[in-house]
Amino acid sequence: MFEDNSPKTSLSELGEFGLIDHLTRFVEIYQPSTLKGIGDDAAVINHKDEATVVTTDMLVEGVHFDLAYMPLKHLGYKAVMVNLSDVYAMNAEATQITVSIAASNRFPVEALEELYAGITLAAKTYKIDVIGGDTTSSTSGLVISITALGKVNPEKITSRDGAKPNDLLVVTGDLGAAYMGLQVLEREKQVFKVNPNAQPDLEPYSYLVERQLKPEARKDIPGLLAALEVQPTSMIDISDGLSSEVIHLCKSSKVGANIFEEKIPLDPAVISVCEEFNIDSTTIALNGGEDYELLFTVDQKDFDKIKANPNLTVVGHITEEREGMHLVTRGNQKIPIKAQGWNSFDDANEED
Amino acid sequence: MFEDNSPKTSLSELGEFGLIDHLTRFVEIYQPSTLKGIGDDAAVINHKDEATVVTTDMLVEGVHFDLAYMPLKHLGYKAVMVNLSDVYAMNAEATQITVSIAASNRFPVEALEELYAGITLAAKTYKIDVIGGDTTSSTSGLVISITALGKVNPEKITSRDGAKPNDLLVVTGDLGAAYMGLQVLEREKQVFKVNPNAQPDLEPYSYLVERQLKPEARKDIPGLLAALEVQPTSMIDISDGLSSEVIHLCKSSKVGANIFEEKIPLDPAVISVCEEFNIDSTTIALNGGEDYELLFTVDQKDFDKIKANPNLTVVGHITEEREGMHLVTRGNQKIPIKAQGWNSFDDANEED
Repeated sequence: MFEDNSPKTSLSELGEFGLIDHLTRFVEIYQPSTLKGIGDDAAVINHKDEATVVTTDMLVEGVHFDLAYMPLKHLGYKAVMVNLSDVYAMNAEATQITVSIAASNRFPVEALEELYAGITLAAKTYKIDVIGGDTTSSTSGLVISITALGKVNPEKITSRDGAKPNDLLVVTGDLGAAYMGLQVLEREKQVFKVNPNAQPDLEPYSYLVERQLKPEARKDIPGLLAALEVQPTSMIDISDGLSSEVIHLCKSSKVGANIFEEKIPLDPAVISVCEEFNIDSTTIALNGGEDYELLFTVDQKDFDKIKANPNLTVVGHITEEREGMHLVTRGNQKIPIKAQGWNSFDDANEED
Repeated sequence: MFEDNSPKTSLSELGEFGLIDHLTRFVEIYQPSTLKGIGDDAAVINHKDEATVVTTDMLVEGVHFDLAYMPLKHLGYKAVMVNLSDVYAMNAEATQITVSIAASNRFPVEALEELYAGITLAAKTYKIDVIGGDTTSSTSGLVISITALGKVNPEKITSRDGAKPNDLLVVTGDLGAAYMGLQVLEREKQVFKVNPNAQPDLEPYSYLVERQLKPEARKDIPGLLAALEVQPTSMIDISDGLSSEVIHLCKSSKVGANIFEEKIPLDPAVISVCEEFNIDSTTIALNGGEDYELLFTVDQKDFDKIKANPNLTVVGHITEEREGMHLVTRGNQKIPIKAQGWNSFDDANEED
């Protein structure tokens, strides 16, 4: 984890308050709605006429990340993205986060500085304010819990339950790259175990690895939709794979859906690495997860507004609930969609 | 931890989404400002003309709690109180929480139900809404991260930095009981280790044990202050002991303080158990922590409004910064106040 031999500072040297002051010393305030940030019992924000969006996600070492190939700075960045993605999925603007970290004494202060560097880079890039948090010790691994806040005009909120039959199903960006990036990194980890002197050549996989290690949340989409004058009828972020999210959206909206295999947006790098790994790329796009793209539905009358946009792909449409949820294959077969997404309680994911 | 022999359900049987649905099935909405609770990418709240207060705290097994004597239901309740206390310390009304839990597979579903029962009891008692969260596996112990939200008229916000020389220092309730409750429980744990058949008689210590295991946050104080027409000049919650909080408040406000030993409010049960343990009760009140009372300052002109209230005790006054922070003993000696509060990174607190 730490390759240099410079002296390390133990967490107990700084103490809890000293550590928080130290880690947050580069925190800046970008949002006028932040009335009071770090340093009191609580932060104070004021979104005035707009509603406040709140979401939270927890990342646990050995379950959600592996420090063998996830640099701490990237982890901090990604932990913020996971949360911002949920804010954007409400058609909202992300504005603030709180950051809680539990770390054992095997992490020196320098490690938490790296983690915080990723968090503050994300905050700077996305113009969100770190307004609070907690930093504490743990008896074993690293746990990061982030809560993100955002603001939205109450009339623009998009929830999961508004999709109607005949609405179009739209996906942003492309799918499956983050999962295949993870497969590439896992393979390199195994090679490294056998031969620690092997120099991995990740260059051909740079897009995939970047999607896994440094995902970006779709901050641009709420603004793009506003500019296109499109109000989605429902929206969800794609964190667990397209299948899982389509199921969530359809169940909440009490509708069915058809997704067309040939329409699913795949980057050429995903197609070629899937061939290399001998995996079906559609399966990866449906079940891979961690893409942090958005899935939304729009009324058919909005098709002309979105059809030419390179960020948006119509992948199918909403049906009556009784018709169920199906993938229509290239061979025109209808296959029921099942969730095979991420389940952190699945024993197969346990590392202990 | 589980004394009955009824069948237990493993976390992986329900899966992540099933588990969240299962645990949150008794969640109710009390606050009109909660526009959207659990079940979407994010919750939506709207405090309209009032500002939103945000605070977060993380509790880690083996660091902040020991399941040997902390029942899971109490732990859930306490985890909420720790956060609400920070909201009340801003002179705000607590309105919503998010709850993130990481638990290893050694916890069956029934254990998390107990934890959630404590959380929902706290929510019901304090009329706050559980609007979101995350439930995930961990590779070792139990971690609970709660973010609390509240609302406050921006003119009524009390921060730590408003105390002025000659202001009065006021404490709510009494101090030291939670810490002595912990000492009693620790002693019983040692007795139990030697003789597992020993039946502890905790009755004489019921107030102390309850303050440790089921603390209550001072929801009543913002309302009481409004009724008394008192606007505190500063406020902080007493989570780490009076010394530590006085230091935080004085440093933020750039002032000094004198606290009078004879004025510190102690319950008779604290005095008697301190004698039994041969510990100085003033030391416990200053450094014990976990009382979740409030410390605030008021202008001297407000003295008549607060002097007769049984919930409020004037323990000292604010001085110029250069005069420093002192305890004035019963013998009229001035002793500098030092922080000896809780530091979770202190090696002595590590259990691994």
